Amino acid sequence: MTDADKVFRDIEAIRAKNPVVLSITNYVVTNTTANALLALGASPIMSHAVEEMAELVAISGAVVINLGTVAPEYLAAMEPAWAAADAARVPVVLDPVGAGASMLRTVTPLALLGAHQPFIVRGNASEIMTLAGDAASAARGVDSTVKSDSASSAARALAMKHHCAVVVSGESDLVTDGGAKLRVLGGSPLMPRVTGLGCTATALCAAFAAVNQNPLEAALHASITMKIAGEMAEAKASGPGTLQLHLYDALYNMSAQDVADHIKVVR
Amino acid sequence: MTDADKVFRDIEAIRAKNPVVLSITNYVVTNTTANALLALGASPIMSHAVEEMAELVAISGAVVINLGTVAPEYLAAMEPAWAAADAARVPVVLDPVGAGASMLRTVTPLALLGAHQPFIVRGNASEIMTLAGDAASAARGVDSTVKSDSASSAARALAMKHHCAVVVSGESDLVTDGGAKLRVLGGSPLMPRVTGLGCTATALCAAFAAVNQNPLEAALHASITMKIAGEMAEAKASGPGTLQLHLYDALYNMSAQDVADHIKVVR
Amino acid sequence: MTDADKVFRDIEAIRAKNPVVLSITNYVVTNTTANALLALGASPIMSHAVEEMAELVAISGAVVINLGTVAPEYLAAMEPAWAAADAARVPVVLDPVGAGASMLRTVTPLALLGAHQPFIVRGNASEIMTLAGDAASAARGVDSTVKSDSASSAARALAMKHHCAVVVSGESDLVTDGGAKLRVLGGSPLMPRVTGLGCTATALCAAFAAVNQNPLEAALHASITMKIAGEMAEAKASGPGTLQLHLYDALYNMSAQDVADHIKVVR
Repeated sequence: MTDADKVFRDIEAIRAKNPVVLSITNYVVTNTTANALLALGASPIMSHAVEEMAELVAISGAVVINLGTVAPEYLAAMEPAWAAADAARVPVVLDPVGAGASMLRTVTPLALLGAHQPFIVRGNASEIMTLAGDAASAARGVDSTVKSDSASSAARALAMKHHCAVVVSGESDLVTDGGAKLRVLGGSPLMPRVTGLGCTATALCAAFAAVNQNPLEAALHASITMKIAGEMAEAKASGPGTLQLHLYDALYNMSAQDVADHIKVVR
Repeated sequence: MTDADKVFRDIEAIRAKNPVVLSITNYVVTNTTANALLALGASPIMSHAVEEMAELVAISGAVVINLGTVAPEYLAAMEPAWAAADAARVPVVLDPVGAGASMLRTVTPLALLGAHQPFIVRGNASEIMTLAGDAASAARGVDSTVKSDSASSAARALAMKHHCAVVVSGESDLVTDGGAKLRVLGGSPLMPRVTGLGCTATALCAAFAAVNQNPLEAALHASITMKIAGEMAEAKASGPGTLQLHLYDALYNMSAQDVADHIKVVR
Repeated sequence: MTDADKVFRDIEAIRAKNPVVLSITNYVVTNTTANALLALGASPIMSHAVEEMAELVAISGAVVINLGTVAPEYLAAMEPAWAAADAARVPVVLDPVGAGASMLRTVTPLALLGAHQPFIVRGNASEIMTLAGDAASAARGVDSTVKSDSASSAARALAMKHHCAVVVSGESDLVTDGGAKLRVLGGSPLMPRVTGLGCTATALCAAFAAVNQNPLEAALHASITMKIAGEMAEAKASGPGTLQLHLYDALYNMSAQDVADHIKVVR
C-alpha cells in the first residue's frame, strides 16, 4: 500500500464512520475547525462544560485539547476531559497554542503532559521547542518565527519522552514518533495568513486518530491531507479569504486521485 | 395569499423593520448566525452578560436561547433573559443543542421549558425526541442519527404540551403546532456539512417571530427560507465552504420570484 | 507625500514588521478580525486571560479593547491589559460596542476612559455620541440608527477630552483628533450587512497604530484601508457572504495602485 492509498483509506473511514471529535478549544477557531471536521466527514462537538466532559468523551472517537484560550473557564475542563479520555482509552491530540508566549501558555501544556500521555502533539516550531525545553524557541505571540526544521531534535525528544507522535507545522511539516522522521511538503504560502489553520491541522489529527490507532500514521495522514487541501484550495483562491472556503470544499471533495496527484512526503 | 406570498411578506417586513434579535447562543455560531440575521435584514445582538439581559430584551423583537454552549457563564444568562422576555411579551425561540448527548444538555432545556412558554422550539430529531421524553432518541454528539419523520409524534406532543410551534430540521423539515403538521422540502445535502446551520435556522425563526405573531407561520416561514437559501446557495457552491457564503448572499438577495420558484411545502 | 503614499507606506510597514496585535475582544469577531489582521500582515493574538495580559502586552505593537462581549470574564482582563499597555507605552484602541444599548455597555467604556488615555476610539455614531454624553444618541442594539455626520461635534469633543483620535464609522467615516476633521468615502453598502466589520475597522486601527505614532494618521489610514478593501471586495461579491471573503483577499492583495485608484478623503 502506498502512502496515498493509506491516506485515502483513512479518509474513507472517516467519511463512513463520522467519528465524534470532542474539542476543548479556543473561541477563535470553534467555527472553522468544526467546519473542517464536518467537511472531512467527522462529527464535531465543542464544549468546555466540566459537568459533561466524561459523557461527551464516552461518545467520542478522539479528543482535541487546544490551549488557544487559556482563560480559567476553559482550562478547568481540560484535566477532567483528559482524565476521562485516559479511562475510556480515547486518543487525545494536544495543541499548545502560544507555548512560550506567556508563562501560562507554557506551564499549562507541560502540566497536562506531566499527568497524561498524548496520542499526538501538534504545534509550530516555537511551541514544540518550548515544550521540549529549548530556550531558543523564540515564540512571538501565537505565530512562530522559526522554521519547522529547527525544531527537528526538539520534536524527536518530545515524541520519545511522551511516546506519542509530534507534528511541527510549517512551510514543510515535520512528523515524527521519535524514531521515524518524515517531511510533508506542499500546501500554500497563503495558509499562514488564515487564522486557525494550525488548529485545523490539530482537529484533523484527531479525526484521523479516531480511525487509525497508529499515532505516527494518524499524524502523517492529517498533515498530508491539510497540505493537499491547501494546495487544491490555492488553485481556486485569490487570497486568504477565498482560500479558507475552498479548503473546506477540498476536504469535502478530496478523491483518491487528488491524494495521489498532490502527496509529497520525504522520508 | 399563497404560502410563497406570505413568506415574502414576512421577509419584506424583516427588511423594513430590521428587528433586533438577541441571542444567548454558543460560541461556535455567534459569527455565522449574526451574519445570517444581518443578511436577511434583522439586527443581531449576542450577549450572555446577566446584567444587561433585561435592557437588551426590552429593545428586542425576539430572543434566541441556544444551548450549544452549556458552560455555567452562558447558562446563567438564560433564565433571566427568558424571564425578562416573558415580562415584556417578547417571543423566545429555544434551540436544545445536543439534548440527549449529555445530562446537562437534557435537563437544562427541560428546566427552562418547565418555567417558561417558548414561541418556537427548533432542533434535530434526536433533540426533539429527547425533550418529548422519547427514550429511543439516540443522540450522538450534536448531530442526529435519526430522520425528522421519526420525531413526528414527539414534535406534536411537545408542541401541544408547551403551546408552541416545533421545527424538526432534517432532510425535510417538519413543522407543527400540535395540530397542523407540515413538511418543508428542498435545501441541499451539503447543509449538514456546514456547522451551525441548525442554529442559523433557529436564528431565522426568531427573525420571523419578530414580525409574525403566529408561531406556526413564523416557524414555517423560517424553515422555508432556510431551505430556499440552501438550494440557491448549492447552485453556486462547489462544497460546504462555498455553500455557507452563498447562503448569506441568497438570504440577502432572495426575491419574491425566488421564493415562488423554490418553495416546497407538503401539508 | 500624498495621502495615498502615506497609507501605502504604513501598509508596507505592517507587512514588513508583522506587528503583534493583542485583542481583548468579543466572541462574535475573534475569527474574522484575526483573519483581517493576518491578511493585512499583522500577527493577531486573542486573549482574555488576566494572568498573561502583561506578558502579551509586552510583545504587542498595539492593543484592542473591544466591548462587544461584556460578560465578567471578559471585562476582568481589560483594566489590567490597559494598565500594562500604559506602562509599556503600547497604544490602545477602544471599541465601545453597543454603548448606549445597555447601562453596562455605557458605563464600562466610560470607566476605562476615566482611568486611561486611548490612542484611538472607534465606534458608530450612536456609540460615539453616548461616550460624549449626547442624550440623542439613540442606540438600538449594536447597530446605529444615526448617521456619522450627526456625531461630528461629539467626536471632536471626545477626541479633545481624551487627546486621541476618534473614528465614527458609517456610510462615510469621520476621523478627527479634535482639530482636524476628515471624511473618508467609499466602501460598499453591503458592509453593514456583514457582522463585525466595525470591529474589523478597530482591529485595523490597531495594526496601523503599531507602525504609526500619530493617532490621527493611524486612524485615517485604517479607515481608508477599510473603505478601499470594501470597494474592491464589492466588485467581486454577489452579497454580504462573498463580500467578507473578498475583503480579506483585498487586504492581502492591496497595492499602491489600488490605494491611489480608490482613495477618497474630504478634508
